Amino acid sequence: MGTQESYVVGIDYGTLSGRAVVVRVRDGAELASAVVDYPHAVVERSLPGSADRLPPEWALQVPEDYRQVLKQAVPAAVAQAGIDPTLVVGIGTDFTACTMVPTTADGTPLCELPEFAHEPHAYIKLWRHHAAQPQAERINELARARRESWLPRYGGLISSEWEFAKGLQLLEEAPDVYAAMDHWVEAADWIVWQLTGNYVRNACTAGYKGIYQDGSYPSVEFLSALNPGFGRFVVDKLDHPIGSLGDSAGGLSAEAAAWTGLCQGIPVAVGNVDAHVTAPAAKAVEPGQMVAIMGTSTCHVMSSGELREVPGMCGVVDGGIIPGLYGYEAGQSGVGDIFGWFIKNSVPESYHAKAAKRGAGIHEYLTALAEQQGIGEHGLVALDWHSGNRSVLVDHELSGVVVGQTLATRPEDGYRALLEATAFGARVIVETFNSAGVPVTEFIVAGGLMKNPLLMQIYSDVLNLPLSTIGSSQGPALGSAIHAAVAAGLYPDIRAASQAMGSVNKGVVTPIPENVGAYNALFAEYRILHDYFGRGANDVMHRLKAIARDAHKVAAEVSA
Amino acid sequence: MGTQESYVVGIDYGTLSGRAVVVRVRDGAELASAVVDYPHAVVERSLPGSADRLPPEWALQVPEDYRQVLKQAVPAAVAQAGIDPTLVVGIGTDFTACTMVPTTADGTPLCELPEFAHEPHAYIKLWRHHAAQPQAERINELARARRESWLPRYGGLISSEWEFAKGLQLLEEAPDVYAAMDHWVEAADWIVWQLTGNYVRNACTAGYKGIYQDGSYPSVEFLSALNPGFGRFVVDKLDHPIGSLGDSAGGLSAEAAAWTGLCQGIPVAVGNVDAHVTAPAAKAVEPGQMVAIMGTSTCHVMSSGELREVPGMCGVVDGGIIPGLYGYEAGQSGVGDIFGWFIKNSVPESYHAKAAKRGAGIHEYLTALAEQQGIGEHGLVALDWHSGNRSVLVDHELSGVVVGQTLATRPEDGYRALLEATAFGARVIVETFNSAGVPVTEFIVAGGLMKNPLLMQIYSDVLNLPLSTIGSSQGPALGSAIHAAVAAGLYPDIRAASQAMGSVNKGVVTPIPENVGAYNALFAEYRILHDYFGRGANDVMHRLKAIARDAHKVAAEVSA
Repeated sequence: MGTQESYVVGIDYGTLSGRAVVVRVRDGAELASAVVDYPHAVVERSLPGSADRLPPEWALQVPEDYRQVLKQAVPAAVAQAGIDPTLVVGIGTDFTACTMVPTTADGTPLCELPEFAHEPHAYIKLWRHHAAQPQAERINELARARRESWLPRYGGLISSEWEFAKGLQLLEEAPDVYAAMDHWVEAADWIVWQLTGNYVRNACTAGYKGIYQDGSYPSVEFLSALNPGFGRFVVDKLDHPIGSLGDSAGGLSAEAAAWTGLCQGIPVAVGNVDAHVTAPAAKAVEPGQMVAIMGTSTCHVMSSGELREVPGMCGVVDGGIIPGLYGYEAGQSGVGDIFGWFIKNSVPESYHAKAAKRGAGIHEYLTALAEQQGIGEHGLVALDWHSGNRSVLVDHELSGVVVGQTLATRPEDGYRALLEATAFGARVIVETFNSAGVPVTEFIVAGGLMKNPLLMQIYSDVLNLPLSTIGSSQGPALGSAIHAAVAAGLYPDIRAASQAMGSVNKGVVTPIPENVGAYNALFAEYRILHDYFGRGANDVMHRLKAIARDAHKVAAEVSA
Repeated sequence: MGTQESYVVGIDYGTLSGRAVVVRVRDGAELASAVVDYPHAVVERSLPGSADRLPPEWALQVPEDYRQVLKQAVPAAVAQAGIDPTLVVGIGTDFTACTMVPTTADGTPLCELPEFAHEPHAYIKLWRHHAAQPQAERINELARARRESWLPRYGGLISSEWEFAKGLQLLEEAPDVYAAMDHWVEAADWIVWQLTGNYVRNACTAGYKGIYQDGSYPSVEFLSALNPGFGRFVVDKLDHPIGSLGDSAGGLSAEAAAWTGLCQGIPVAVGNVDAHVTAPAAKAVEPGQMVAIMGTSTCHVMSSGELREVPGMCGVVDGGIIPGLYGYEAGQSGVGDIFGWFIKNSVPESYHAKAAKRGAGIHEYLTALAEQQGIGEHGLVALDWHSGNRSVLVDHELSGVVVGQTLATRPEDGYRALLEATAFGARVIVETFNSAGVPVTEFIVAGGLMKNPLLMQIYSDVLNLPLSTIGSSQGPALGSAIHAAVAAGLYPDIRAASQAMGSVNKGVVTPIPENVGAYNALFAEYRILHDYFGRGANDVMHRLKAIARDAHKVAAEVSA
């Protein structure tokens, strides 16, 4: 490289926006970044230009929104960095997962074909599309009955969010769309396909979301037993060469070079998932270092030399985070989303007015009020399942609960109870890993929520662990940049690149002993409610969702 | 009377205000009314002029607020009626209960003595003061152990709201106040004392709240076993002549005549409770006619010729509603209070803005939104225990629950779930009476909430009963006026006065068969949660309240 600096671009595709960051290869310094909000955000109520209501639990996205990030955010970040674009030597990307794009043979999303523009099933199913739960249940039931060897690799449960459940829903609810589809593509791989013209499945999503274990997928027999028309799902729609993390998927195409303003031919790293790619950004590449990426949802990733079956984990994948180690994943499907939902739906105007008067944001103001309370003074305990439960129950038919409201309960009480509920949810996950022989020795927080000091103290007290925080506020994009640097051959492997380019602040919050004791009492209550509502003692949440679906159907028929 | 009309004044003391109504004796026509809001409303956080925080669960009132109703509302109503005040021939009153005033021998409230002005225990304990729960539990435990004959008359449980629990709390937490107190007086009787100069205990509160059964109170032995200092509680503080409902307690005193502008010496009826006095106003004086007075809380009253033990009822009292019949009472400690709490704490500004744009109140607007949903479409089930559970669990340590929240849950969903929860609570009560051999054959609604058509339809569907509604929007005041007319000797008894002066609209809402079925499914879920949280399977609510009390104590010590 001589004395000339070189740079990489990391692009992080989140739930609501995409962010490009320009990073210096030598030390990981982040020079500039730019964000593009997806114009259609999450499509939940009706398709663009339509008044037809989507069924409950649907969550779609629009592919052109993703391209806008390449066209707008990348040039903007490079311009802001003030560097010569020819000094950018590689691109890495990460994506939400499992987010699925049905495409033609050349990668065109079906919803971009005029004949499918009004067909919800032709759109991208976002990770939090939870309408394939019935299919997930059939997959799990059959896998248990057949004792499929891959099932324990996913904590014993395949999620409705993943490739097979969503694929089966597509087949059964829209067979014409299914028939017209040549590839069922992870958005993580679709964006790399858009950048390079090459379709390469990445080892991370193929393993975690695509049930690819020990070199194979679920068998034709298994799939046929689910639905005869599904037998060739892997062969016809899914199977494709797999790339290792940190490898190059190909060079930047002429078209994508024009979109981004970068040089044609520079290496583009194999796709990756936002959470997993954050581990190297936080220098968490050794066994026992659990990284919690806390944003709208939380994803927990951790590497280990041991292969263990952890009940209710999302999955364990060989090389799923770092080639050469087993990568474990767990998650909480709603965290910041729940706080945001509360703010949007449950906070009266007087609070906004007082926050504005103080020059504070509403989260900040509620946090300040919540902070004045003793632990348990609000008298509440909540379950953080407003978006279902990913780990360790793996059940998206679960829902939120608040117990203990009185006429004296104020918004800051409910808010704090939800902060705490997510910490209790994290503790259930950590304890489950510990019990399964994959001990968590360090808890490293990344993501937007690490900025809330009360939340961080609550997590530290509830987990009784010191917390470290990632040094970057753009962890996934930095991780993608690290992958880009490896793909470009500037570091020998992800570990080496992580040491040079990653960043972490060790032990920034430590548990307060009396708080730990106070939270143990509240966590005991959480645990009882968690098991009562989550492990079959009272399946009221499942029944309520079924009732709601039926009522919705009747209402839709009446209005039709 | 000749051709000259005569009038009575009924005065209704509610939780937040007092209302005087001028009523024509001949036909019950309501000529005019006037309301005074209590200046101090409910004292829950700190005493007037003090910054000291009251403990949780306290709810006090200020006696001068009650006098202001006599001084302002009565003359205002009479003036507005445009009648000659000398044509007012009697006064009747009703009050919240059990609301207790500690007084000197002449009826002066202790909080009006300078030495006790800063002593919370010297103030009036409002019905919803729930801090005597530990005392209530000891009373119940001991009564069960001793198989006290009066216990089944109260559904097997004495409430923390009533005279004995509150009296024992006073003794144990403020022995000096207890020692200085000559009488422990129901506010219902205190106001009559203020009007007449005579202290007469009314048969209604003495029976329902004062454990007066078959001519006697709990024994000295029983009381001494609770606390040696409590042995003479009845003898020293409580016992006093009892007046029958509809009798005169004495003539209007010169002082009270000056306050009200009415003639000295006109009869003042024996005190009564707001709920019970509503039955004659709604012409509900026959067995099986359950009147639900739905306001901040709901009180259910019904007469019967039979004496039965109904589990969890508030009580059965001979002549407790109408002399000659057994009067049954049950209740829900929070109803409109819960809706109001939700509006105050959980509705964002955008809803207020949209309501204002439509020229609608916020309750009205939320109701309109909630009305558009199919039953169960919101996916929620709630427990209506934000103010505890009066019937049939009789446990004020219980608290509210919402199950089923998702990121798509909107304020109108939560609001509707709370409306429904209170209907489910009412159904538990009706089913309990039916099972106990005191069948409910008619459900007659009174109180402010009868104005909400959605709420009325929900109750009719959930109960699967046609609903009648009282013809007056001022039921308790009309009932008090009926009592005044009887006390003045213008009718032979309450039944006759009720037929002439009361008013009811029969069967104004009827159940919709498909709704009844849909609600049966949701009620089944309510029942499971009701029994799980309310009958000992998971005492989380009790533990959360204990934790909250401890945390509050610690916080108070830290700030002291």
